[in-house]
Amino acid sequence: MIPAMSASTFAFDDVARQGLYRAIFSRRDVRAQFRPDPVPVDVLARLLRAAHHAPSVGFMQPWSFLLIEDKAIRQQVKSLFDRANAEARAMFEDDKGAAYARLKLEGILDSPLNLCITCDPDRAGPVVIGRTHIPEMDEYSTVCAVMNLWLAARAEGLGVGWVSILDPVSLKEVLGIPARVVPVAYLCLGYVTEFLDKPELELAGWRQRLPLEDLVHGDRWGAKAPAGLAGLLGADGHQTSNS
Amino acid sequence: MIPAMSASTFAFDDVARQGLYRAIFSRRDVRAQFRPDPVPVDVLARLLRAAHHAPSVGFMQPWSFLLIEDKAIRQQVKSLFDRANAEARAMFEDDKGAAYARLKLEGILDSPLNLCITCDPDRAGPVVIGRTHIPEMDEYSTVCAVMNLWLAARAEGLGVGWVSILDPVSLKEVLGIPARVVPVAYLCLGYVTEFLDKPELELAGWRQRLPLEDLVHGDRWGAKAPAGLAGLLGADGHQTSNS
Repeated sequence: MIPAMSASTFAFDDVARQGLYRAIFSRRDVRAQFRPDPVPVDVLARLLRAAHHAPSVGFMQPWSFLLIEDKAIRQQVKSLFDRANAEARAMFEDDKGAAYARLKLEGILDSPLNLCITCDPDRAGPVVIGRTHIPEMDEYSTVCAVMNLWLAARAEGLGVGWVSILDPVSLKEVLGIPARVVPVAYLCLGYVTEFLDKPELELAGWRQRLPLEDLVHGDRWGAKAPAGLAGLLGADGHQTSNS
Repeated sequence: MIPAMSASTFAFDDVARQGLYRAIFSRRDVRAQFRPDPVPVDVLARLLRAAHHAPSVGFMQPWSFLLIEDKAIRQQVKSLFDRANAEARAMFEDDKGAAYARLKLEGILDSPLNLCITCDPDRAGPVVIGRTHIPEMDEYSTVCAVMNLWLAARAEGLGVGWVSILDPVSLKEVLGIPARVVPVAYLCLGYVTEFLDKPELELAGWRQRLPLEDLVHGDRWGAKAPAGLAGLLGADGHQTSNS
């Protein structure tokens, strides 16, 4: 028998709930605002623990965490970025290419610590509950760990920047990552001079936030969302005013 | 010039920070504990807004949200699950197969609402900043949206279950999803009778939580983590006692 309870029996109180929402709405992808102060080891432990408690397909926990402080190794990664970034810039034409070149897209050497979060597809044997029909589920689980860490970092006052302009094969060589293991995320981590009010690409005029109501469908693709919802999505409430 | 500030200038106060950590550590993948009460439209709007404020590569915001209430459509999805689940079960041998059959792995019809979160790789044109060298980045961004929504749901007292035992091609047919769009996550959403103390697969003895200290490396794969860190990771602090 289901005990009597209100719908919100397990909801957090307002203050705790707002702690989570504040992390979600004020989190940024930090590139240019890193400070060199080291990340204290107890704070780092809390971030890793948050990541380790992400959901994972079949509870496989496919993630590993490489903590890259060594300057020479980070310099090698920075060289990989420089090469990939030049290739990337060439893919954008005219004005967009010039705008691309003005963007600062990484803080590999400015931040005190880099973090590579990897996915080992063999972590739980060849057949994994929940991965039988969608093989990407182990990488998706690893991204869940990245997101937990990112939010925890924001609450601890730390910025995170995800550097994805890297050739993964070369990155694996530099970091000695085994062939089977996928380097899902290369992150820069550190305290910051500020958290920007909005995403850097939005402030730079590169691309705007899309209206959420345009992204919500009903029971099938293209069907209208439930009555009453669209109006609530369109309202730019206080939680999005600085995001 | 960098203004004077302490390392933790932007850290949340303890209560707000614990709100986030509580969501991270008490979040569960819910399968068997759904209640039928509908999800209020204002709560749903907050969840979608949290998802929409996830980080995304090149600020492309590749996600869309299908809100599936219709019972006939959910019954079709349930049939897809039943078929895939029978195939999956056959991949596990002997005892493990029998144990698999005893697990409840979805709440498609028990929950009041299903949610398919998709990724449109064409959302921001063919060339996307940050996706030039890692094409999976748009799907990874979509998973970030899933994780934001999942944590927000926990803070609102709502359970989420990710159903990945589905053939994605058949799922796209049922939901009318265009060819280019990837159905990254199929979620069940609803209030619950309880949030379990530990992950269901851990309670069922299927698989245990791995020691975090075994998953942390130093500057390169296989190198020791920074001195002092391992001890902090091994300690089973209060935050993990119920997770």
